[in-house]
Amino acid sequence: MKAKGSNAERQLVAMFWEKGYAAIRVAGSGSSRFPCPDVLASNGQKTFAVEAKATKTEYQYFRKDQIEQLINFSQVFNAEPILAVKFSSKWYFFYLTNLSITKKGEYVVKKKDAEDIGIYFEELIS
Amino acid sequence: MKAKGSNAERQLVAMFWEKGYAAIRVAGSGSSRFPCPDVLASNGQKTFAVEAKATKTEYQYFRKDQIEQLINFSQVFNAEPILAVKFSSKWYFFYLTNLSITKKGEYVVKKKDAEDIGIYFEELIS
Repeated sequence: MKAKGSNAERQLVAMFWEKGYAAIRVAGSGSSRFPCPDVLASNGQKTFAVEAKATKTEYQYFRKDQIEQLINFSQVFNAEPILAVKFSSKWYFFYLTNLSITKKGEYVVKKKDAEDIGIYFEELIS
Repeated sequence: MKAKGSNAERQLVAMFWEKGYAAIRVAGSGSSRFPCPDVLASNGQKTFAVEAKATKTEYQYFRKDQIEQLINFSQVFNAEPILAVKFSSKWYFFYLTNLSITKKGEYVVKKKDAEDIGIYFEELIS
């Protein structure tokens, strides 16, 4: 699980660099006592704080506290908070405002909705 | 060596948060195939890309390629490149322009010069 997540993050970092963004993976995201995203990227004009997941299933959940931390971090750093989900081999990107919330307060992204409410990488960075 | 470096980085991250900056440690700095600093911090107005070292000796060296990578990253990300050195228990911060370069092309910071050419954390962030 952890290696899969790291590999997805590494791929995302490479995608950003390819498009002229400086990008890094955050150390200890998920274990740090301070809020932090998985990936940070900026081209000096746009800055993204990204929570990234890869899944082979039809759903991807994000815990409420993960999202709250992402928002909190992004406000202080002045970054745009973004969720990135790799369904099978395809990346989709989601603004927080477009997402459904479950009764448990989790954010959920469904593969079947990804084409409708998600955007492609090219759109994100353009 | 590695744990000492990570602990120094964690301390730096906590110092930035305490002063209203969002800060993170970069994963795989030193091993990533892309240039990256050790620590990134921003309050939305000022952004710092920091190469951080802790030493109990009188000198701290930075390899030329480390500095070049720091500059490269900082230009794309639009961050201020900064060296942070913890001599014994005290942190000093250095702008790249103030540093001596050895014949080997390494940047060197001497403990005895730290008070003269380095600045304190409070000055850095103010």
